[in-house]
Amino acid sequence: MDTIRLAIDVEGGDFGPEVVISGILEAKAGSLIPFVPYLCGNKDRIEQIIVNSGGRDLLKNCEIVHCSERISPDDKRSSAWKQRADSSIIRSITLQKYGIVDASISAGDTAILLGAAHFILGHTDGALRPVLAAFLPTARQKPVLMLDVGANLECRTEHLVSFADLGFAYLSKYLGRSDVSVALLNVGTEPSKGTKTIISANEILKEKYNSYIGYIEGNGVLKGYADIVVCDGFVGNALLKSFETFYILAESVLAKDATLLKKFRDHISVIDPESYGAVPFLGIKGTVLKAHGGSTSRAIANSITTALSAVEKEAVWPKNMRPKGN
Amino acid sequence: MDTIRLAIDVEGGDFGPEVVISGILEAKAGSLIPFVPYLCGNKDRIEQIIVNSGGRDLLKNCEIVHCSERISPDDKRSSAWKQRADSSIIRSITLQKYGIVDASISAGDTAILLGAAHFILGHTDGALRPVLAAFLPTARQKPVLMLDVGANLECRTEHLVSFADLGFAYLSKYLGRSDVSVALLNVGTEPSKGTKTIISANEILKEKYNSYIGYIEGNGVLKGYADIVVCDGFVGNALLKSFETFYILAESVLAKDATLLKKFRDHISVIDPESYGAVPFLGIKGTVLKAHGGSTSRAIANSITTALSAVEKEAVWPKNMRPKGN
Repeated sequence: MDTIRLAIDVEGGDFGPEVVISGILEAKAGSLIPFVPYLCGNKDRIEQIIVNSGGRDLLKNCEIVHCSERISPDDKRSSAWKQRADSSIIRSITLQKYGIVDASISAGDTAILLGAAHFILGHTDGALRPVLAAFLPTARQKPVLMLDVGANLECRTEHLVSFADLGFAYLSKYLGRSDVSVALLNVGTEPSKGTKTIISANEILKEKYNSYIGYIEGNGVLKGYADIVVCDGFVGNALLKSFETFYILAESVLAKDATLLKKFRDHISVIDPESYGAVPFLGIKGTVLKAHGGSTSRAIANSITTALSAVEKEAVWPKNMRPKGN
Repeated sequence: MDTIRLAIDVEGGDFGPEVVISGILEAKAGSLIPFVPYLCGNKDRIEQIIVNSGGRDLLKNCEIVHCSERISPDDKRSSAWKQRADSSIIRSITLQKYGIVDASISAGDTAILLGAAHFILGHTDGALRPVLAAFLPTARQKPVLMLDVGANLECRTEHLVSFADLGFAYLSKYLGRSDVSVALLNVGTEPSKGTKTIISANEILKEKYNSYIGYIEGNGVLKGYADIVVCDGFVGNALLKSFETFYILAESVLAKDATLLKKFRDHISVIDPESYGAVPFLGIKGTVLKAHGGSTSRAIANSITTALSAVEKEAVWPKNMRPKGN
């Protein structure tokens, strides 16, 4: 098994570099796949945090890539990839461009990361636009891959079909199964329901995939009727974010009963977004994973596991297509 | 207090007339507002069910409106309002048109009911299209009114603004408050986020309502940040239906622990769609409430309470604008 080289944007995420580095230490301790992290961020601070957190061994088994710039809230997100080339989020992508790493992870701004992945690595021939996917929990105890969840807000038929293509290619490799089922989100399951865009995408997908199961409604997503749910980025984003608050709602319901609340928390990992780690951008010439902005160290560790597995299975981008590095 | 005359489509709903009639009996027993139900459906069957359920008193205090037709799955939903004029769902609307009742409720097909309300009663001048709203639970223990949830799938700016107008007019009267807050669903809260349609609706709403609080994301809906959330009918429908499955997901999480599951069920009414009853179509010249297809008798009873309250507060349509009946 080759050692995987993984760039990690240490400055990305809502909770700062300490939490990201903790997550790396957790992943290092638990990972079955050997990897070398390339820590992108402020070198002095990274070293200090590693020493403070008692992770001196990590210093011998990682590369630190000093980044001198920081993204500011005033930066234009669409052009940050060239204006802030020496920020940690952009460098984590550039390292992949030059073949120095096999994949990268960031919990930073989605639009900036997507722009950098798109313009620095390029998008694949089949893809119309790069796509953001997300795993969601279901009542069947297996997650569903939903896409797009925010990169493409207004979609034509061919966009929806390309989401199905990208999702199917990724998930079938990631799970090692050729029968992953695909569904199209709609407001009903009758053939006449939905917009013209949806109705024509349905016709195309029906011909294209044996494992296409047709329309799915909002209530079918969490019931786990399909392995992949295709939708435009506006509705996908709204659903994804609302699902993240489900456990907040459940907890508010149970707040008056401390014992019950504690027991519920013990059971809740399946609907806890932290347990799902990161998802890759699809349609990009490389393996770029976006972790949740609010990732805890456990979520970062899970994101690393997902990234290593995606690289090993060549689920996003084949090994022989990766740039040769130094 | 005037006695309210309420048409009820006894044949509508997934569980048949027995459940609807049970709901009417529950509402009769518990309602503080006096009302006479106009039971639309098959006369013989209605009388039989009332007798069987031990509700003979109801027979003395209701009107039975015999309907000779039934909606068939082959009927075109857009023209059912004229093709099946003597079906229970259409008659419940016609009774309102002729001033025989003050409001109506159906748990039948949304598209058929909306078409009938639109074409038989007409839509209000300010409204571009009739709108379907829904109450959703939130973590603040008060519901949020979301609209549209499925009647208008593709919306221009002026549609979104009209949803805000209709929702504000309804909820401010229903709650008796002039400060109900309005938010616009978007994929982010920064001013640059979203489609052109959303961005221009945001500009208009900002000028129009003091209580407009701007963009809300999918995770803000359930957190209860706003009293009213405006969105297009496609995303609203997907969110509404997904919220309905939250408790199914929670139950699947807890299924291994019978004690915990039982306790959870005791607490869960706040996220149980049944407890919210029905919501009116907005932008229609009359008070037409759509109850959930899967309504239990308790949900029907709650729907009746909502309808009586909406009529009394003139929340949907003013009393002096109602047609004069016999």
